[in-house]
Amino acid sequence: MPVLVMKFGGTSVGDLDRIRNAAEKVRREVERGHDVIVVVSAMSGKTNELVGWVEQTSPLFDAREYDAVVSSGENVTAGLMALTLQEMDVPARSWQGWQVPLKTTSAHSAARIEEIPRANIDQKFAEGMRVAVVAGFQGISPEGRITTLGRGGSDTTAVAFAAAFDAVRCDIYTDVDGVYTTDPRIEDKARKLDRIAFEEMLELASLGAKVLQTRSVELAMRYKVKLRVLSSFEDTDDNSGTLVCAEEDIVEQNVVSGVAYSRDEAKMTLISVADRPGIAAAIFGPLSRAGVNVDMIVQNISEEGRTDMTFSCPVNQVARAADAMEKAKAAGEINFHGLVADTDVAKVSVVGIGMRSHAGVAARMFDALAAEGINIKVITTSEIKISVLIDRKYMELAVQALHDAFGLDKAA
Amino acid sequence: MPVLVMKFGGTSVGDLDRIRNAAEKVRREVERGHDVIVVVSAMSGKTNELVGWVEQTSPLFDAREYDAVVSSGENVTAGLMALTLQEMDVPARSWQGWQVPLKTTSAHSAARIEEIPRANIDQKFAEGMRVAVVAGFQGISPEGRITTLGRGGSDTTAVAFAAAFDAVRCDIYTDVDGVYTTDPRIEDKARKLDRIAFEEMLELASLGAKVLQTRSVELAMRYKVKLRVLSSFEDTDDNSGTLVCAEEDIVEQNVVSGVAYSRDEAKMTLISVADRPGIAAAIFGPLSRAGVNVDMIVQNISEEGRTDMTFSCPVNQVARAADAMEKAKAAGEINFHGLVADTDVAKVSVVGIGMRSHAGVAARMFDALAAEGINIKVITTSEIKISVLIDRKYMELAVQALHDAFGLDKAA
Repeated sequence: MPVLVMKFGGTSVGDLDRIRNAAEKVRREVERGHDVIVVVSAMSGKTNELVGWVEQTSPLFDAREYDAVVSSGENVTAGLMALTLQEMDVPARSWQGWQVPLKTTSAHSAARIEEIPRANIDQKFAEGMRVAVVAGFQGISPEGRITTLGRGGSDTTAVAFAAAFDAVRCDIYTDVDGVYTTDPRIEDKARKLDRIAFEEMLELASLGAKVLQTRSVELAMRYKVKLRVLSSFEDTDDNSGTLVCAEEDIVEQNVVSGVAYSRDEAKMTLISVADRPGIAAAIFGPLSRAGVNVDMIVQNISEEGRTDMTFSCPVNQVARAADAMEKAKAAGEINFHGLVADTDVAKVSVVGIGMRSHAGVAARMFDALAAEGINIKVITTSEIKISVLIDRKYMELAVQALHDAFGLDKAA
Repeated sequence: MPVLVMKFGGTSVGDLDRIRNAAEKVRREVERGHDVIVVVSAMSGKTNELVGWVEQTSPLFDAREYDAVVSSGENVTAGLMALTLQEMDVPARSWQGWQVPLKTTSAHSAARIEEIPRANIDQKFAEGMRVAVVAGFQGISPEGRITTLGRGGSDTTAVAFAAAFDAVRCDIYTDVDGVYTTDPRIEDKARKLDRIAFEEMLELASLGAKVLQTRSVELAMRYKVKLRVLSSFEDTDDNSGTLVCAEEDIVEQNVVSGVAYSRDEAKMTLISVADRPGIAAAIFGPLSRAGVNVDMIVQNISEEGRTDMTFSCPVNQVARAADAMEKAKAAGEINFHGLVADTDVAKVSVVGIGMRSHAGVAARMFDALAAEGINIKVITTSEIKISVLIDRKYMELAVQALHDAFGLDKAA
């Protein structure tokens, strides 16, 4: 029978009633002739409680024990979901990561999936089991310890199972009904997209749209898994939600698909850096080792052997970044006259695979912002994305102006 | 290094502070030169919460899923305990049942331990780990599913590890400071025993003293594991608590060691049963199949081919017992004139290995009860125990009278 993967996040299994509601959706897919692999998160709040206990116990915790503790939340949901399905006369059983076994690297708390052997679950499907309920977010290391995939790892678990079992689709049930052209809390004309390309979803995910975890989209793109985002709190059918799919499966396409934003950014400028070959490595090496996630980078034109170097990073990493720079200066690795941090900036981006074939997107973006009197501080572009750093107070205005300028309230 | 097993129950690990307190006791034993196996229960209340969820989800639950869900509580405590010990610079790691692996039968929710291979934990001890923190109450079936040992199974886990690792002792830390001559809530002169024989502890445990799980005492007796019950909330040393040990390790011994009671008993009498060979089997077979735990049995002298048959069982099984009897009558398996249930009785027992070598214990017991005007309804005896069924309203009085009559407030 064709295999369908269905994933339910923490709010979708937040209590026994919600688990029953989710199980009802699973039962319907079984009746429609699917063998189903259900991937479940912990009941909402549970993982945070467990993480809190670990951090209170041991601020610099052993990640192996962290994983052993926090993975337990998913085990509870998996068992309860299997029992709920059994009550509905659907043959189901739960699988913990080590039972599948979902094999991962040993990078505890941020492990990567290495392999999902199909034999155990396939055998149960052959024996008449119709639903394998899998505890998301967890696996087993080569040493036999429990690993976790990092926060949001249940999305990745679901996509990996869809790839391993050649699933017809991977449905991600969540508390929103799909992917929007932008955040409806900021722009009330935001429109739900029926389809979005993997590449676009990747940009939106990494830009702060919290619908899907970035790694799950990467994985879906690599293995061509049809990924769908839809609501667990509404009646749904085959046309519900947003399908994340390959570019060629999208017929009608706006030039720009969405406007994303990231609120808590900071801009840091190293003033009058002594310029020499390798200076970028000398700056960004220490930042990387200090755990600073550098995003945008701009280097001014060098004059008389000195230059200004500007980069952006999350606002809560500014102190760490400044510390790393001062230490590198003290060690003689770099030389600069001053360090200026602007902690009142935000990033706004337009994303769309249509940009590849349409010129003038950047100009239209800059015009729209200029018309609102919004000053652009830093610009970066990729093939399908243009991002600008602006004063944070203009962020909402910028999102609305761009949504309007690219006609995103109307379908292509 | 000599291995010590330490077990902490739910209240002893009820929150992070209590886990730290327990870890402090473990650390002291490590400093005294022990390799330690710590067996932990779930934080108090957690298992009940999980059981509640399972029962609400599925009244006739699949025991395999029940086990997968309820075992998660111990996993959390095990990880947190390992982290707490690491914070104290004690090399420790957690072990879930399947990681040891603690091999059990497939009797889910009531599995029996089959084998605890030492290799994995021994290897870690050899590499310098000083504490193996084991999640109690759980194991793995031959089919690779998670099993649990039944409520209170963490005591059994601890004793089984002590047997497998030739431990010098198995210390059961709990919320009482030892085994008492009787319940101090009923008799304020109750005295903590320094030592008690396995056989006596077994009788007390099965009679309702909730300090240790019966199976754990059986296992300790079989494998000659020195078992100690002591408080996790007091400062403790080698002389704390009560040592449960072989008879020959007890030098001074009262004739009677303790007075036990069981409050919620019922007495049922089948009136005028048609007596014939095999009638006992015809009565107690159906009761057993109906899940009735028959305890005491008395058969009157048979007259003219008919007899009265009296037995006791827990008061909440009376309806089930009556139903089984009426069905057996309807099926023609037995024949009786009436069925009388007395649901206001309690059982009081005196226990002591000294009875083996002392006559007159029964007479002293019956005299003491008679002196208080307490009527005895049923009597049963074993080699080291005498139990009587009496009206429930006299239960406390009987316990006090017997405690006094056998001089239990004074050490031997």
